[in-house]
Order: sequence, then structure tokens, then C-alpha cells
Amino acid sequence: MRADALRNRVRVLEAAEVVFAAKGVSASTEEIALLAGVGIGTVFRHFPSKEALLEAILLDRVAKLGAMARSLATSLDPGVALYGLFTRMVDQAVTKKTYVDALADAGFVSRIGRSQAGQEAVQALGALLVRAQQAGAVRDDIGVTELIALVVGASRAAEYATGNRAAQARTLQVVFDGLRHPDRSSGSEANDS
Amino acid sequence: MRADALRNRVRVLEAAEVVFAAKGVSASTEEIALLAGVGIGTVFRHFPSKEALLEAILLDRVAKLGAMARSLATSLDPGVALYGLFTRMVDQAVTKKTYVDALADAGFVSRIGRSQAGQEAVQALGALLVRAQQAGAVRDDIGVTELIALVVGASRAAEYATGNRAAQARTLQVVFDGLRHPDRSSGSEANDS
Repeated sequence: MRADALRNRVRVLEAAEVVFAAKGVSASTEEIALLAGVGIGTVFRHFPSKEALLEAILLDRVAKLGAMARSLATSLDPGVALYGLFTRMVDQAVTKKTYVDALADAGFVSRIGRSQAGQEAVQALGALLVRAQQAGAVRDDIGVTELIALVVGASRAAEYATGNRAAQARTLQVVFDGLRHPDRSSGSEANDS
Repeated sequence: MRADALRNRVRVLEAAEVVFAAKGVSASTEEIALLAGVGIGTVFRHFPSKEALLEAILLDRVAKLGAMARSLATSLDPGVALYGLFTRMVDQAVTKKTYVDALADAGFVSRIGRSQAGQEAVQALGALLVRAQQAGAVRDDIGVTELIALVVGASRAAEYATGNRAAQARTLQVVFDGLRHPDRSSGSEANDS
């Protein structure tokens, strides 16, 4: 891709992220072109459909998340790093409507998960998780699948409690406390089902 | 409503629940009428739109949930009762596509929440929660809002881990362990955001 085409692509992506965040994924392509300062033809040349645009934004976000997890994996305190990243992911999911709308679509989530950026992010998260477990900050009996399921679930819980920051914080604290280590007094109710 | 009209209404509701569970909410009204053994006019007379039908099903489910919570609130072991009900709600959300689809729609959730059946169910869940807290089975620092947010979040987490029963059970166990009592070794990461 030529340098100016690449610049336009990045400009459209950034504009789309802002517009989707403000108005949800139903925002029009015209608004995105206007904010990016390009013609609507340029938008369609790079992204033939709104789904393609949304997918590119999420892949970009996932790639950044992977890079962040990778750099945090060498942190001196992997526990703080992991819980910090977890909090950040939940915050992003709640404040950015783009995320919430897209994450509600299971097909979309699994497509992102199978992408190279997705697999690299999962691998990096997994490495950070193992380091946090070695540091005693996270219970030993969960893997990266459970971790991601909990991020997705905690994001949905926070969205449910929208407008009540205190309830959102307490909900996340419950998940974090459960992540630290198995409750010794706990029965096995979760396995009864 | 006359007795036969009432019988038809119940029949349509039950058929709709089965059809939606099997095929998702995009299933046709014709299929529902066929399974219920009534004409399509009868379906529309009771439920003018698919939304009305879906809402009636969920209100019925919520009413049953409320009745169950109310009867469990006098249980000798309110902790076991609460975790059992929590598990059941998550299982239902995951196995019944109707639930998942509808719960992804925040407007729908808040409309159900404001209904009489919804308010009674919240009240009954709250009473069960207080009894479980008095029995020492649930931490003291959460209320019914956090509890419901966690049910919704745990359902989404379980859906994410679809096909992996072991991961689903471990994910739920993390939430339950966090619900039992605050982790004394825990910092305050969740409040940093």
C-alpha cells in the first residue's frame, strides 16, 4: 500500500472508532468519511462494508491489547499488571459502545479469536496469567479460557450496572477476590449443575 | 379471558418457548402456531408482535424465578439455596437461546426489571441474599444490584465458554469464591479504575 493510502486507512480507522464510540455501530459511513476528511469512496475502497470496518477496529484493539499483555508479562509485579489490564479491558468494554455491540455477537467474537492478532493476544494473556500465578496473585486452577470468559462476563456485569460506579467496582472486586485463590470454606455448588 | 382463550394463550406461550429455545428468536410465528395446534390468527390475537410474545415468556420466567427465590428464602441453608438458584439461572441463560438473545438487549432487560414480576423477583432475590449473608455464606458488602449484575455476567462468561463444561464450572466457581467473602490478602485494584 502506498504511503498516502496507508495514511488514509489509519485516518478512517481512527475516525470510525470515535464515531462508533459516540453513536454506536449504527452510525453512518458518511459521518466517518466527514470526520476523517476523506471522500466516502476512500472509506469503501479500504473497507467494503461496515462489518469490515468494525472488524478492523477490533483487530487493531486486540493487537494493542496483546502488545500490552506482552510487555506487562515481564513486569516486576505480574499480579498488579494482570488485575490492572483486566480492569482496563472491562472499562473499555463499558465506555466504548463499539465493543459492547460487537461482543454481543458470538460469531464476531470467535472470528476475532481465530485471527492472528487474536491468537497472539491470547498467548500473551496466557503468559501473563502464568507469571501472576507463579507470583501467587492468581489461583492455580484456571487457564486463559476462564480468564477471558471472566473478562467478557465482568464487562457484561459492569454494563448491567451502568450509572452505578460503586456497584460496578464492587462487582469487579468480587471477581478479583475469587480469582486470587480458591475459597477454602467453599463447597462445590458450582459443580452440582 | 374465557377459559378456552386462556388455555390457548398458555399453549402458545409454551410452544413459543420450545421453538425459540430450539431455533432462536428468529423462528417464525407459523412454526409456533403449528406446534401449539392453533391458527396463526390466534397467536396474533394474544401476542400482536414477536416482541410481545418474547416479553410474555420472559415475564413468565421471571415470575417463576421470583416464586422460587421467595420459597427458598425460608430454606434452612440459605447459602446453598442462593448458590443453587444462581447456578440454575446461569444454566438457563446458556441453554435457552431465548434468554441469551433477549438479555443482550439492554432496553429489554430494563423493561423486564421495571415490570411488577421483575420488581417482585428482585425483592425476593434481595431477601434471599440478606438471609445468606446473615448465615455467613455471602460477603456483607454487596447488594441485590451486584448479585444480579454477577448473574448476568456469569451467564455471559458461561456462554463464552460454550462447549467447555469444565471451564464453565471453574469460571462460576471463581465468582462463587469471590462472593463468599472478601479476600483478606486482596488489594484495591478494582477501585483504581
